[in-house]
Amino acid sequence: MIKFFERAPYAPVEYTYDVEETLYKGKSKYQEILVIRNPYFGKMLILDGVVQLTERDEFFYHEMLTHIAMHAHPHPKKVVVVGGGDGGAVREVLKHRSIEKVYFVEIDEEVINVSKRFFPTVSCSIEDPRVEIKIMDGAEFIIRKKPSNIDIVIVDSTDIIGFARSLYTEEFFLSIRDCLTEEGMFVSHSESLHFHMDMVIEVQETLKKVFPVVDLYTTPIATYPGNWWTFSCASKKYRFREVKRKHEIETKYYDEEIHLQSFLPNSLYEKLLNKTLTW
Amino acid sequence: MIKFFERAPYAPVEYTYDVEETLYKGKSKYQEILVIRNPYFGKMLILDGVVQLTERDEFFYHEMLTHIAMHAHPHPKKVVVVGGGDGGAVREVLKHRSIEKVYFVEIDEEVINVSKRFFPTVSCSIEDPRVEIKIMDGAEFIIRKKPSNIDIVIVDSTDIIGFARSLYTEEFFLSIRDCLTEEGMFVSHSESLHFHMDMVIEVQETLKKVFPVVDLYTTPIATYPGNWWTFSCASKKYRFREVKRKHEIETKYYDEEIHLQSFLPNSLYEKLLNKTLTW
Repeated sequence: MIKFFERAPYAPVEYTYDVEETLYKGKSKYQEILVIRNPYFGKMLILDGVVQLTERDEFFYHEMLTHIAMHAHPHPKKVVVVGGGDGGAVREVLKHRSIEKVYFVEIDEEVINVSKRFFPTVSCSIEDPRVEIKIMDGAEFIIRKKPSNIDIVIVDSTDIIGFARSLYTEEFFLSIRDCLTEEGMFVSHSESLHFHMDMVIEVQETLKKVFPVVDLYTTPIATYPGNWWTFSCASKKYRFREVKRKHEIETKYYDEEIHLQSFLPNSLYEKLLNKTLTW
Repeated sequence: MIKFFERAPYAPVEYTYDVEETLYKGKSKYQEILVIRNPYFGKMLILDGVVQLTERDEFFYHEMLTHIAMHAHPHPKKVVVVGGGDGGAVREVLKHRSIEKVYFVEIDEEVINVSKRFFPTVSCSIEDPRVEIKIMDGAEFIIRKKPSNIDIVIVDSTDIIGFARSLYTEEFFLSIRDCLTEEGMFVSHSESLHFHMDMVIEVQETLKKVFPVVDLYTTPIATYPGNWWTFSCASKKYRFREVKRKHEIETKYYDEEIHLQSFLPNSLYEKLLNKTLTW
């Protein structure tokens, strides 16, 4: 069987997957785009040599990226999704009937096109009339276009290197704060707690300069190196460790218990921020 | 750099590690034993092509394998450790001052010898006078030698295939029940919830035939494929989701909050046992 060797940055373990079939191989303005079929995971989307999603397990990431903030907010109506060209985050957000508008800001139109073609179960909500697609840099959209009265901003970026770095700066977070309502919330993935602790701390510290409420939760994701994946979240007012709305949507993994249990225990969270965790 | 390609059974992702140096390569009566040095993880112990531990992150597994039961039990004195020839589980058990006796039952003496030579920070407690080493099959020890008045049995086996299969049978669990006091407890790793759900369910179902209290907790471990590692535990009387003794020992990861948070949320646990989880 042909093998795909992942080129995950900074990961001290390399992941290799069997390739049953190479379905697509292309190069956009921003990155190499590859779609393969694996006997276990089904179709897999790979950007610049790094696995972004698999048909089999994408729900762990997309549900946990979106539904924590969506259930910690009392009534989200307007959401910005930055990145996530596959459409998975948009799909999850639109499961909530309160949603009136989603700005879907993706820098690389090719990712959207490839996802529509090869991952219809992920991209299925991109054409929803509540979605406004913006093909542009997410930082540019937030900083220059200044959307207003946003309830939740969700950043679904590639790894925090290269062109995604601009989505983790203080300037970007300040602009997010400005576009949010007083009840507004922010969430982004922030790499692996096993392998990228420095990056997790950096994102947390930058968020703390801008928002009064900052927190961290994790989810085990089999196809991201390090697996113990972190999500950094921040808000002007509301805590995330509280479920404000009843869980009424269909999910495979997320529920109220998972919501509460996914946050780093206080003891560990304090040690992380004090930089006294050592591994 | 030379690479080590792991041969993990049933794992749909292959893990590859850089090899700075091969420190030991041998073949015991039972398995191939390999010790390599990796730039990130330090020394790594590999049995039959599968990573058993790394210097850098072994504490996640050893702390979580032992301290949940050790803190859910009100006063553990006599413990049996089956497998775990590296000595990591024994080291953690002996951190508790209540411990009077540890039967350390390892089938492969070579693993103990290699660990003493290459992993002194892991094997450091094997020579403790409270430890009685038995070089024999763990099932044989429990079923035929019938130790008595045991407070906790800890199974630290290789993957649940090959010769480790005998440690997951109803006959073995029945004999464990017989050797335990009325307050006695059992715990074993039971593979990845991402990749080996069938095995997790099988272990749980077999335990439920034998013990009135059965539960499941998880820990993210970066160097075991699937990472979302499960531990199956069972007892005659006490629940595991309760910390009975103050946390007074030194640990890097385990604490009371981690203890409570590591159990599968009830909602998810019920779905797992009903076989309605799908991934």
